[in-house]
Amino acid sequence: MYESEIRESYSRVKDYVHRTPILTSRLINELAQAEVYFKCENFQKMGAFKMRGASNAILKIPETIRSRGVVTHSSGNMAQAVALSAKNLGIPAYIVMPDNAPQVKMNAVKDYGGIITICASTIEAREAASSEIAKNTGAIFLHPSNDLDVILGQGTAAFELLMDKPDLDSIIVPVGGGGLLAGTAIAANVLSKKCKVFAGEPREADDAYRSLISGQIEYNKTSYTIADGLRTHLGDINFPIIQKLVKGIVRVEEKEIINAMHMIYERLKIVIEPSSAVPLAALMNSVGKFKGQKVGIILTGGNVDLSKLPF
Amino acid sequence: MYESEIRESYSRVKDYVHRTPILTSRLINELAQAEVYFKCENFQKMGAFKMRGASNAILKIPETIRSRGVVTHSSGNMAQAVALSAKNLGIPAYIVMPDNAPQVKMNAVKDYGGIITICASTIEAREAASSEIAKNTGAIFLHPSNDLDVILGQGTAAFELLMDKPDLDSIIVPVGGGGLLAGTAIAANVLSKKCKVFAGEPREADDAYRSLISGQIEYNKTSYTIADGLRTHLGDINFPIIQKLVKGIVRVEEKEIINAMHMIYERLKIVIEPSSAVPLAALMNSVGKFKGQKVGIILTGGNVDLSKLPF
Repeated sequence: MYESEIRESYSRVKDYVHRTPILTSRLINELAQAEVYFKCENFQKMGAFKMRGASNAILKIPETIRSRGVVTHSSGNMAQAVALSAKNLGIPAYIVMPDNAPQVKMNAVKDYGGIITICASTIEAREAASSEIAKNTGAIFLHPSNDLDVILGQGTAAFELLMDKPDLDSIIVPVGGGGLLAGTAIAANVLSKKCKVFAGEPREADDAYRSLISGQIEYNKTSYTIADGLRTHLGDINFPIIQKLVKGIVRVEEKEIINAMHMIYERLKIVIEPSSAVPLAALMNSVGKFKGQKVGIILTGGNVDLSKLPF
Repeated sequence: MYESEIRESYSRVKDYVHRTPILTSRLINELAQAEVYFKCENFQKMGAFKMRGASNAILKIPETIRSRGVVTHSSGNMAQAVALSAKNLGIPAYIVMPDNAPQVKMNAVKDYGGIITICASTIEAREAASSEIAKNTGAIFLHPSNDLDVILGQGTAAFELLMDKPDLDSIIVPVGGGGLLAGTAIAANVLSKKCKVFAGEPREADDAYRSLISGQIEYNKTSYTIADGLRTHLGDINFPIIQKLVKGIVRVEEKEIINAMHMIYERLKIVIEPSSAVPLAALMNSVGKFKGQKVGIILTGGNVDLSKLPF
């Protein structure tokens, strides 16, 4: 499924993203009773794997059209990823941000040369502002997770991980909008005969878990999770891929996320955002399931407000 | 000076320590107006460069004597370094720890198989307990900073850094007991014709700065610095080396240390202890001095109480 597409995506983005390192910890291996390989996308350009999806999608746009620019709406990593990718290619990036987005995120987008439009913090206002900009400028709209080229771009993290560690038994990633999970599943399916893909998801925002059970895209009525990148729901492009290729979703408690986050700071000595800790939390609460395996975990990003660490 | 000794030390320890990575940040380079290369000893075994000095000193002891074990007194990284190095060589490590040492540090030493003796938290009690153990067991005493083999072992961090980046103009390290600073100066003097070695030191514990001016070892009456690894004073073995080979010591304010620490967490996405931020603080308050240079900084360790981060 999408074999040539994922290989082409990797060739397309590899000169525009960092080949991030893989870290291990003897103590975490002992606790998990498994060999755990952490793919460190917190060291990626702009600090998160979203750089891969944004770069892939923008590079895929034919050059004559690309020059008109790109537009997205995001208060988080996708805003920075699109702004930086566009800057690298010398095209305009129009970023719609809600009026409650943190100033530090707005500053980062400005640093990368993004042209910011502020709107109300509803999804309707964001979509309306994006459409208006696309209409007026001809800029191409990029969805942060429900776009095949974004999905394939996110999949290049697992693609690299499996090039370095071809004998992984499992890969666990967090699931929010579903782009990374779908892309990872495509990459594993192409590069490995045995590697199974799982997601970790906060119990407080377990829409993807419920979607796999019901067979339709479910939503969160509330999403009181520290993993702020995972509060969104799946999309109609990534959901069928996830249904077909993903082996399961493990739900985790908030306390487990915080414990896993602390373990990564303390043992790997690296800074990650809370969403990145969810796969390790899933592994730790399901030790029997992964016992004796070689397990890859994608640490998705490191853009965290250091004054608000939960420990 | 000590050319064959530093080369031998590197050969001796290289299979017992990690060859730690070197990280860079575009933004930090812009702010510092220099090319800055961070040698990440926070990723070293047991989380700090002290693993190098402990390994070198223990490996240097003839095998027949070594089997009797080693003894040190420390409440910090040297305790863990000696315990782990001894464990790797299958010999006993007797660690004298003050009764106010954090439980987490004691647990780490126990995890590495160290045999702990608790004593009062005065230097006299620590030295007396160490002497008693050495007398009763025949274990060899290791000083954490004022021992030539420890100094040479610590110098292997800069030795590796200069193998990877031979054209550095300067290296900046923190100075506490003086072992790392003396070892770094020896390595730079041997491997480079031009590389100058500087130290950063908290103004709140500026004994080394004053020692270079007065020409004799000075002490701190108080040491109210967040950089808890740098509260100690120089020793009679490392001081003459520092006098001869070190180009200068830059003093920094507490606020500058915290800002530099925050910058490293935010931009490099790594966890360091406060002492490790002192060289970047020194660089940032002396931009004119290092402008346009290639500057190496040794990030000494990552063993920090995450519940007490200063931001």
